[in-house]
Amino acid sequence: MNKNNVSEAVIKRLPRYYRHIKALDEANVERVSSSKLAQILGITASQVRQDFYNFGGFGQQGYGYDVKNLRKEIAAILGLDREYNMIIVGAGHIGKALAGYKGFIKEGFKINALFDINVQEKTYNDIPIYHMYNLEDYLKENQIDMAAICTQADSAEDAARELIKNGIKSIWNFAPIDLKVPKDVVVENISMSESLFVLSYRSKNKN
Amino acid sequence: MNKNNVSEAVIKRLPRYYRHIKALDEANVERVSSSKLAQILGITASQVRQDFYNFGGFGQQGYGYDVKNLRKEIAAILGLDREYNMIIVGAGHIGKALAGYKGFIKEGFKINALFDINVQEKTYNDIPIYHMYNLEDYLKENQIDMAAICTQADSAEDAARELIKNGIKSIWNFAPIDLKVPKDVVVENISMSESLFVLSYRSKNKN
Repeated sequence: MNKNNVSEAVIKRLPRYYRHIKALDEANVERVSSSKLAQILGITASQVRQDFYNFGGFGQQGYGYDVKNLRKEIAAILGLDREYNMIIVGAGHIGKALAGYKGFIKEGFKINALFDINVQEKTYNDIPIYHMYNLEDYLKENQIDMAAICTQADSAEDAARELIKNGIKSIWNFAPIDLKVPKDVVVENISMSESLFVLSYRSKNKN
Repeated sequence: MNKNNVSEAVIKRLPRYYRHIKALDEANVERVSSSKLAQILGITASQVRQDFYNFGGFGQQGYGYDVKNLRKEIAAILGLDREYNMIIVGAGHIGKALAGYKGFIKEGFKINALFDINVQEKTYNDIPIYHMYNLEDYLKENQIDMAAICTQADSAEDAARELIKNGIKSIWNFAPIDLKVPKDVVVENISMSESLFVLSYRSKNKN
């Protein structure tokens, strides 16, 4: 299987599969059929099987998939079979929401530090907050895998440049702009405005 | 055109088209080709034309689309040709991030009030914060179009039930659960964990 051929739509569905399969596992469900998964996700069973086929199919036999195995395989595909050290640039409400969310560490994402141009507290949720001046030294001294950019739009490019210059290759971008980055840097955008516009679209076009 | 047949992928791309076309308009660009739009969005020109075909094609003539017209048409499709009165349930960091974001009001989304079970301040960013006890009366006395749920996962179902009971039909959900809602209620989820897992997937699978 060539993972580079996996479509955007499938990639976006993987975390949803993972969340529901994990919930099934935690509820001690041992096997799950493609129809059941389809029902949970609101798609068709054939879509589930097609999606899974991208990754070799996960060995469905008789009645459905082995839940524990499926959880483990999808976790590995998503890169959740290891730990990540993260930092957050921008210690406003979004940065603090991330720093305070307990769900990330459970999946192996450790938030090590927050950075801001205006440091008002030394820590948040026991995570140190440093001035941006310290970012370069911090990244030289610590093995950091990912950075979240939670600044205003007009500071996000500068933040990205500084992060990339200091070796960060994976950026989670909350600022409402498209960052220009070198080809070896991965950016995942999360846009609140775009999500809100999808809501207004759906509200307008519902049956 | 039957808008109910528009695919999820196209719906999700519409806000991105809108953002870029608005930026072109604000930069006084008068016409834009499908190839230029494709380049900006990182898709193919044929994809752009297919996407637009869902909505009648927007009358491309000679060299590209009229930017002002395209902006207006896509705004109308997204339901951005009117104003919305919103409230936010949950006045933690996410709720406050939404209440403090200036981009929403510019597009017609007015945040009128925040609600929480634990009210520590009377206002945030000049927006009143009320106790959840007041939600029912507030919704009877005010014409509210949408609500954002920014509570913890374990309070989100209760919040949704209360909102729906009091007439809210459009919910923007930031809590990491799938809300069960009646068919006439529209929910748009924004999941930070899912976005983070897409980032770890991309980091693992990049070339």
